[in-house]
Amino acid sequence: MKKETQKLLLWVALLLGIFQTMAQPPRGPFVRSPQVHDDHTVTFSYLATDAKEVLLGGSQFGAANVPMVKDSIGIWSVTVGPIKPDIYPYSFKVDGITVMDPANVDFFPNERFKASLVDIPGDKPLMHALKNVPHGTITYEYYPSIEGSTGQLVVYTPPGYDKDPSKKYPVYYLISGTTDTEEDFFKVGKVNFIMDNMIAEGKAKPMIIVMPYGNPAARIAEQTGGPKPEDIRNRDSEEAIKRLGYFETDLITKVIPYIEKSYRVIPNGENRAIGGFSRGGGQTLRAAFNNMGTFDYVCSYASYISPAELESKFTDLINNPEKTNGQLKLLWSGIGTEDFLYKGTTEFNEFLIDHKIELKTYETDDGHTWMNVKKYLNQTLPLLFQ
Amino acid sequence: MKKETQKLLLWVALLLGIFQTMAQPPRGPFVRSPQVHDDHTVTFSYLATDAKEVLLGGSQFGAANVPMVKDSIGIWSVTVGPIKPDIYPYSFKVDGITVMDPANVDFFPNERFKASLVDIPGDKPLMHALKNVPHGTITYEYYPSIEGSTGQLVVYTPPGYDKDPSKKYPVYYLISGTTDTEEDFFKVGKVNFIMDNMIAEGKAKPMIIVMPYGNPAARIAEQTGGPKPEDIRNRDSEEAIKRLGYFETDLITKVIPYIEKSYRVIPNGENRAIGGFSRGGGQTLRAAFNNMGTFDYVCSYASYISPAELESKFTDLINNPEKTNGQLKLLWSGIGTEDFLYKGTTEFNEFLIDHKIELKTYETDDGHTWMNVKKYLNQTLPLLFQ
Repeated sequence: MKKETQKLLLWVALLLGIFQTMAQPPRGPFVRSPQVHDDHTVTFSYLATDAKEVLLGGSQFGAANVPMVKDSIGIWSVTVGPIKPDIYPYSFKVDGITVMDPANVDFFPNERFKASLVDIPGDKPLMHALKNVPHGTITYEYYPSIEGSTGQLVVYTPPGYDKDPSKKYPVYYLISGTTDTEEDFFKVGKVNFIMDNMIAEGKAKPMIIVMPYGNPAARIAEQTGGPKPEDIRNRDSEEAIKRLGYFETDLITKVIPYIEKSYRVIPNGENRAIGGFSRGGGQTLRAAFNNMGTFDYVCSYASYISPAELESKFTDLINNPEKTNGQLKLLWSGIGTEDFLYKGTTEFNEFLIDHKIELKTYETDDGHTWMNVKKYLNQTLPLLFQ
Repeated sequence: MKKETQKLLLWVALLLGIFQTMAQPPRGPFVRSPQVHDDHTVTFSYLATDAKEVLLGGSQFGAANVPMVKDSIGIWSVTVGPIKPDIYPYSFKVDGITVMDPANVDFFPNERFKASLVDIPGDKPLMHALKNVPHGTITYEYYPSIEGSTGQLVVYTPPGYDKDPSKKYPVYYLISGTTDTEEDFFKVGKVNFIMDNMIAEGKAKPMIIVMPYGNPAARIAEQTGGPKPEDIRNRDSEEAIKRLGYFETDLITKVIPYIEKSYRVIPNGENRAIGGFSRGGGQTLRAAFNNMGTFDYVCSYASYISPAELESKFTDLINNPEKTNGQLKLLWSGIGTEDFLYKGTTEFNEFLIDHKIELKTYETDDGHTWMNVKKYLNQTLPLLFQ
């Protein structure tokens, strides 16, 4: 069969299919992307009839700007790998323009960039694989937040939460990073499937995980029409200082009370943990250290507080190690050797250890990525509430 | 201050901000988009230093391919409108390449295209506005589906669902269209906020809304590694026919039993409704007509079954109007005059009316869009379970 005939038949098939299934009007030839193969190679495809150059972006699996090749219909594609099984963000560069993969529904929620996600399964299921085990749920909650705004929380409840109305649970407050949203630990970190699997294997205690948004100032500006965080140029102004405190005020005075009213939780420090990635790690450490007794388990994923800030703002905490160690059941700090916050984090770790503060440290390879966040979850979730 | 100095200061401010907040490495100048103004005009912006032409796509608010203008930093922007308040999809065309707005987190979940969403508030709050009323929640559920696959459901529970463990609710099964996902009635249709507002105003009965995925064959293929729906070329083959039935089999034998086991529902036809948009409307009508007594309320949003199919497959239903009318408490069909399914839908409506089947019809302007879906929700939600 000739190419032109093939092309014509493809269109006829598409049009018939569309008529039969009542789709939107036709959008062009059918592109399937990404296609993950059994040998861990992946084929990426993108339709761009008139483009001069299409590259596969996504250096995080070691394939930065790989040229793609155009077929007779105008679909560009490339096969790369084998790639180490994991979930990776990627995008295409079409004549220099970065685009998500239109054929892929899995994406990376972010305030500043748009990327698609490819999940390359392992030969043995990875920690986040969707397995045939009891599943918890993810719930989007709307709560009265500070400054008259309404906030959105993403909440994991473990399998069986709705079955036994007498059972109460510990809670892990888990905060994503700068430009991330409250959806990232769900959509990118797959924390729900990781927990489902750990609970099924008896590796972690059933717990509720609450994922707040790390940037309430932006949400407040959006809802009230007031200035956005980036409009406050003078960082020493009263307004700027108030805004810097928004996250912690919201967490302590709004989020926790809302959760403890709405879910069956054990409302004490022993049954509250806090953790976060990047900016969320800094927020974690400050919220924990400013409110000793509120969270007995504290996990910093690729983040730190500088020794200068520790010395000036957390004097009591660093100078009374016995008291501090008695209050915290877990203080955990993980970092990748390629992370751009590696130096600051190791200085933070060393400073605490020098001050006899009990700290569990974890070092892995790779950088400031959500692939590493899953490693940090894998290390810390089994340690909580034990 | 000179432009170059301004630019330098912008970068310094960004870098300082990034250091202090532990962000990802810098990604370029800060772009804010979209900016919705009080007069219902909207400014869209996109950073593309080297692009030759940037257009605003999104003809659905009457602004198709509007040229954008580049500033000295390389940010392209345009202000359009005033636009009739509503939620609209849009995208940019950058040298002919369609891209989402990188600065906007609100997006349109879809299997085939990627679009951002802009929400232009009304002078009076629109039906989907986030108001200071009690809020329900949205839950992502994982259930054992057909062919050994695990399905994802999006479930709305009304405000107060967790408060009174003795209260039981009716359920509306709501299905999105071709290439949509189970997230669209939540993320694009804002059915949760519409329901919250209607319940607060006493306009609709508190109900659970269950949003399944309309294309389980694709999910099964993804999870089992088997052929995808589009691989089955022979539409008369046993395999193709089995797959065509997947949605209904899944709904009746898996989704409904899972929901009735997991939620406090009233498990009878009087307290079950079904509705859907586009392909989901066709699935609605077939699931209802094939299982009379299961759903007493049936809503088709911009969809239909052809008279030929009604005559051949639903003979009893169309030839015994008294029986049919006695069984269905509501049969509803809505369409826009510009909808590409307008003709088919009006033929369907007329055919049913000719056969003395009681049918509520609704006609509005505009086309096959999610703006119209909200109008259909606005019409039908108050009619359910009354």
